[in-house]
Amino acid sequence: MAPQLDGYFKQVDKLSESFIERLRKAVAIPSISADDERRPDVVKMSEFLVSELTALGAYVESRPLGLQPGKNNLQLPPVIVARYGASPDKRTILLYGHYDVQPALKDDGWATEPFTLTVDDKGRMYGRGSTDDKGPVLGWLNAIQAHKEAGVELPVNMLMCFEGMEEYGSEGLDDFIEKEAKPGGFFEKADAVCISDNYWLGTEKPCLTYGLRGCNYYSVSISGPGQDLHSGIFGGCAHEPMTDLVRVLGKLVDTDGKIQIPGINEMVAPVTAEEKSLYGDISYAMDNLYESLGSKTAIFPDEEKTLMARWRYPSLSVHGVEGAFSAPGAKTVIPARVSGKFSIRTVPDMESEKVDSHVFKYVQDEFTKLRSKNTIDVRLIHAGNWWVASPKHWNYTAAGRAVKKVFGVKPDLTREGGSIPVTLTFEKATGKNVLLLPMGSSTDAAHSINEKLDRRNYIEGTKLLGAYLHYVAEEEMKA
Amino acid sequence: MAPQLDGYFKQVDKLSESFIERLRKAVAIPSISADDERRPDVVKMSEFLVSELTALGAYVESRPLGLQPGKNNLQLPPVIVARYGASPDKRTILLYGHYDVQPALKDDGWATEPFTLTVDDKGRMYGRGSTDDKGPVLGWLNAIQAHKEAGVELPVNMLMCFEGMEEYGSEGLDDFIEKEAKPGGFFEKADAVCISDNYWLGTEKPCLTYGLRGCNYYSVSISGPGQDLHSGIFGGCAHEPMTDLVRVLGKLVDTDGKIQIPGINEMVAPVTAEEKSLYGDISYAMDNLYESLGSKTAIFPDEEKTLMARWRYPSLSVHGVEGAFSAPGAKTVIPARVSGKFSIRTVPDMESEKVDSHVFKYVQDEFTKLRSKNTIDVRLIHAGNWWVASPKHWNYTAAGRAVKKVFGVKPDLTREGGSIPVTLTFEKATGKNVLLLPMGSSTDAAHSINEKLDRRNYIEGTKLLGAYLHYVAEEEMKA
Repeated sequence: MAPQLDGYFKQVDKLSESFIERLRKAVAIPSISADDERRPDVVKMSEFLVSELTALGAYVESRPLGLQPGKNNLQLPPVIVARYGASPDKRTILLYGHYDVQPALKDDGWATEPFTLTVDDKGRMYGRGSTDDKGPVLGWLNAIQAHKEAGVELPVNMLMCFEGMEEYGSEGLDDFIEKEAKPGGFFEKADAVCISDNYWLGTEKPCLTYGLRGCNYYSVSISGPGQDLHSGIFGGCAHEPMTDLVRVLGKLVDTDGKIQIPGINEMVAPVTAEEKSLYGDISYAMDNLYESLGSKTAIFPDEEKTLMARWRYPSLSVHGVEGAFSAPGAKTVIPARVSGKFSIRTVPDMESEKVDSHVFKYVQDEFTKLRSKNTIDVRLIHAGNWWVASPKHWNYTAAGRAVKKVFGVKPDLTREGGSIPVTLTFEKATGKNVLLLPMGSSTDAAHSINEKLDRRNYIEGTKLLGAYLHYVAEEEMKA
Repeated sequence: MAPQLDGYFKQVDKLSESFIERLRKAVAIPSISADDERRPDVVKMSEFLVSELTALGAYVESRPLGLQPGKNNLQLPPVIVARYGASPDKRTILLYGHYDVQPALKDDGWATEPFTLTVDDKGRMYGRGSTDDKGPVLGWLNAIQAHKEAGVELPVNMLMCFEGMEEYGSEGLDDFIEKEAKPGGFFEKADAVCISDNYWLGTEKPCLTYGLRGCNYYSVSISGPGQDLHSGIFGGCAHEPMTDLVRVLGKLVDTDGKIQIPGINEMVAPVTAEEKSLYGDISYAMDNLYESLGSKTAIFPDEEKTLMARWRYPSLSVHGVEGAFSAPGAKTVIPARVSGKFSIRTVPDMESEKVDSHVFKYVQDEFTKLRSKNTIDVRLIHAGNWWVASPKHWNYTAAGRAVKKVFGVKPDLTREGGSIPVTLTFEKATGKNVLLLPMGSSTDAAHSINEKLDRRNYIEGTKLLGAYLHYVAEEEMKA
């Protein structure tokens, strides 16, 4: 039986101005987690959510996370957990979002005041946090309100987890999720997880995201002299760490992005026919890439190869060098110790520790070939795993039907090249399927100046989140 | 006829405490040319020299250089020119030094107040400018005073040129020297030039310096994307400028310092038997190199190869990268535009423009091989020529005899790996031989914390400068 959603949709339309008002209030609170001085505003934003959720009739708790590590007596903002509905006959869906935002100053180049929601005549709603991630978080609240006011029963139990440190590494959250997912914990009963904190591939067609790449980040440090040297005095008499470093970094990857480290590409899972079939429908053009690159310096000429390179193949980027001369102008220094930074984006079925050992061996071998008297130290700075879910799971097929219902199209099935670490945390802690269901579009400029959320994405997105809760309630369990 | 110097030497010994007092007064004036706020102190130091030289009976002029380019109405410190003796029967020797100093703060790590001359029980006289270059400048004044008070006639006419911007690029000096070297100018009558502004190779044996390397400094910029990219989103789909840059920089020089650019090494003048013979006597041990390196990462195992590599062969150093990630920690950026900085130390008979064209061609060729869609721009940032004088010129043989007379040893005949641009300026402007006759030793820490000049170097150095004026007066013109 197809869900009856007309009443709900009408109510969302009716309430749309008040939903925008709700977003306006949220954007006005500069809840910047990276700025210690703004911590009271982050807390204020958590209180706003508690008050709104309470008014909607949800059960809400504000959970402290203790002191922020490395800071002098600074409390972390709380995690807001909430429950709406607790019927044992209904599925329980765990929803995640974050209420903190990136820093923003008008002087950074914003056309409008970043903490004043400003709607233009095309319905673009500018403001820090509009799309990342206050709009999606409020989408869930809007969905509850519209159901209540339309008198439509929600067919699932909702569990909510809204954090306030996402833009600063989700300090303290992993332990919290693991604890609450255990028997007796707040998230114990979750049957599936839905995260709305990423973006459509373009501007017209919604997507469901079922994979993320991981990232192993390395430093390779080469040192020799006891202190920086003058190249006039020592140039030609001593082994120079920077000479060795550029030679080693030059061996890691070729111009076309092919990783030169033996053993890495060999671990990549082959493309199956089924996986390949997903790429045909995706709404993406090379011009989208050129626009976001700001140039035509693409490696591949076609969309499929480009998206596969971004989503399902590893890549290696050299990010920079620490310890060398990096200012404008000229300085005749021989740096005594230089550290090259590079990272590998990982994909199924690469094992993180095996990647490390291949990298360490190769870098060491290439350095040994140089026969330098300098010394080398290569190490992992941090690692985050890749993640991939089955897009055939009922959590996904339900979301796909909801998209079709609200937008009239089948969603793109996408992966992302970057990482959203909390995805893996939820999957590991709950053992349940995790769905990434974005609200915003590719042009929203999260983390940048002039961040915005389109009115259509917010209002139709609210409909989508509510519709998803209906489809996911009745979707047959198969995958 | 050997010069009669005993009376002069005795007078120097007798006046030694007052000479140290003169240095103490000079060091107490913080004449830091790089610090706009200290400009009045630089001027004060020029006035100190005018007053001292006038009291000694010299003809002195304080010559303005106008406003400092790029500054808001800031006068350059004057050049102090002076003449002592104007007999048409005598040779005229032009002497150069500088009265400005490097910045210094006690907090930088000085053991004593940097602008208070502090003499320890081993005769080490600590203070900013003690060795660079106030001690040598005052050495000439001391020499005049000791001659006057001993009643010994100076057998040459002295011309002096003391500048106040050496530590900040000798702003305005080149034009001044060129003008004054022309007919009717203050330096017109100079027969030879002597500069005391460098250092002995070690601590025991004086040296005469007859060569300097030049320096051609390059940037190679590679750009592609319109703005910095996130490696999660774009890693694997776009040509990365940093990947191209490390591959190009890795092709410039090998671990043992051999420049890989065709045409460069081919321009180097071969070592003659005569030149080679100069190296045998030089007082230098590999331990001196290890100590100054702070490590044993030397390319060559022996002294001769090491000194030749520093003095008479070219070298190439990679200094760093502008535009890439250079801070501690990890950042997953793909920089949009990166500029590698490298320089080549040049030697006879390398022609600067030919070096440039070999570099441009090679860098462009290596980049073309990469088949990258990024764009490259390689350019010269600045060039300064190498310089070499004949150590057989009478200016040098006279100085060699003076060293033998004062120190009882034949001086090391050295070159330097770095550059002292004013040397070339004097040579070109006057067309005369230029001698570098240092006073300080290798351990003096010019430009560093705890700069010092040993009492022995200052007092015996004053004797040496005076003795040189006698020997140079009567040396036969041959080379």
